[in-house]
Amino acid sequence: MSRPLLQLALDHTRLDAAQRDVALLQDHVDIIEAGTILCLCEGVNAVRALRAQCPEKIIVADWKVADAGETLAQQALGAGANWMTIIGAAPLATIEKGHAVAQAHHGDIQIELFGNWTFEDARDWYRVGVRQAIYHRGRDAQASGQQWGDADLARMKALSDIGLELSVTGGLTPEDLPLFKDINVKAFIAGRALSGAANPQQIARAFHQHIDAIWGEK
Amino acid sequence: MSRPLLQLALDHTRLDAAQRDVALLQDHVDIIEAGTILCLCEGVNAVRALRAQCPEKIIVADWKVADAGETLAQQALGAGANWMTIIGAAPLATIEKGHAVAQAHHGDIQIELFGNWTFEDARDWYRVGVRQAIYHRGRDAQASGQQWGDADLARMKALSDIGLELSVTGGLTPEDLPLFKDINVKAFIAGRALSGAANPQQIARAFHQHIDAIWGEK
Repeated sequence: MSRPLLQLALDHTRLDAAQRDVALLQDHVDIIEAGTILCLCEGVNAVRALRAQCPEKIIVADWKVADAGETLAQQALGAGANWMTIIGAAPLATIEKGHAVAQAHHGDIQIELFGNWTFEDARDWYRVGVRQAIYHRGRDAQASGQQWGDADLARMKALSDIGLELSVTGGLTPEDLPLFKDINVKAFIAGRALSGAANPQQIARAFHQHIDAIWGEK
Repeated sequence: MSRPLLQLALDHTRLDAAQRDVALLQDHVDIIEAGTILCLCEGVNAVRALRAQCPEKIIVADWKVADAGETLAQQALGAGANWMTIIGAAPLATIEKGHAVAQAHHGDIQIELFGNWTFEDARDWYRVGVRQAIYHRGRDAQASGQQWGDADLARMKALSDIGLELSVTGGLTPEDLPLFKDINVKAFIAGRALSGAANPQQIARAFHQHIDAIWGEK
């Protein structure tokens, strides 16, 4: 099992605010995510600006694409993203087309697991070449009190067994990480836990310390 | 049953190209949609620019929101959209929060029907106040040959019976409209059928002539 990476999700409404947090945190995280809110507010220029700011980082365009997979992958990967997200509710044709464009750019597609997806869907995604998914406890679900539970962990384990590496997100704190010790985690995604903290770099270090303690040092 | 409206979907990657089509067509359509592609490429400025260009039209921000319903509805409606789309795979909490913000702006939420949604989901959407949904034959599904069929029409009828007004989209041509004569259609959405036509205004007139013939003149 590979050592999980740490991903900074930027869900700011303004690019300048996002870029201030990137300046603070880019040496403390592995992946920079142009979040859905940021992208809908600032457009593909957000991806382009983050690529310019972080030439060496993995950049994710969290677009949760539902249709027009080819056009949108061309836009996202063309602007410098390495990975683009597609929502699990998208038609398989959308996923296939997005994946083909991502591969041509030496990039990847990540499936965002929202709504009534099934393990049969997950096997279809794997079959068309997808190797990553994002397991999500939504902001609104969190706010309404939904916690990480055994059912989540069992579903993550089943997705791992299908062959999908998982990134995990949704109000994660460093203290939550031991919950995921048996899962094939690609990345832990933290947004406001990092960028909203009084000392964001200290929180990033705490994430890495927990990752080191559970999965071993780099 | 109310007379269906005609909606122009703008799925351009550039705002200037979208605005050229709006200039040609705004007097021939009822609703202007800032499509997902346009919004991901140009950001919320696309909505703001379309509102400035069309002060009197209904404007839809087709954001297919999956999370952060409150923040995104504030952005979309705050920029001048009347309606914002939320994907059916979103948690009910996201839909509820987006709907509350839309109502506060005297606007509406439209649910985009992608993926494995159920009629139980549809009844939940209705229960939290949503009154509109978008029945979709996706671009990628169209390209892979999926046609409008009896199953689509039966599902639309069942959604109408739950109390949802439907907008219908996906490669529609004026000749397709009689298929929907028994459905409570809010709007027919056309993108490339209009903006990609040699004579877009003529195609818009053909849509209106079919609507008049089936549902009666304005």
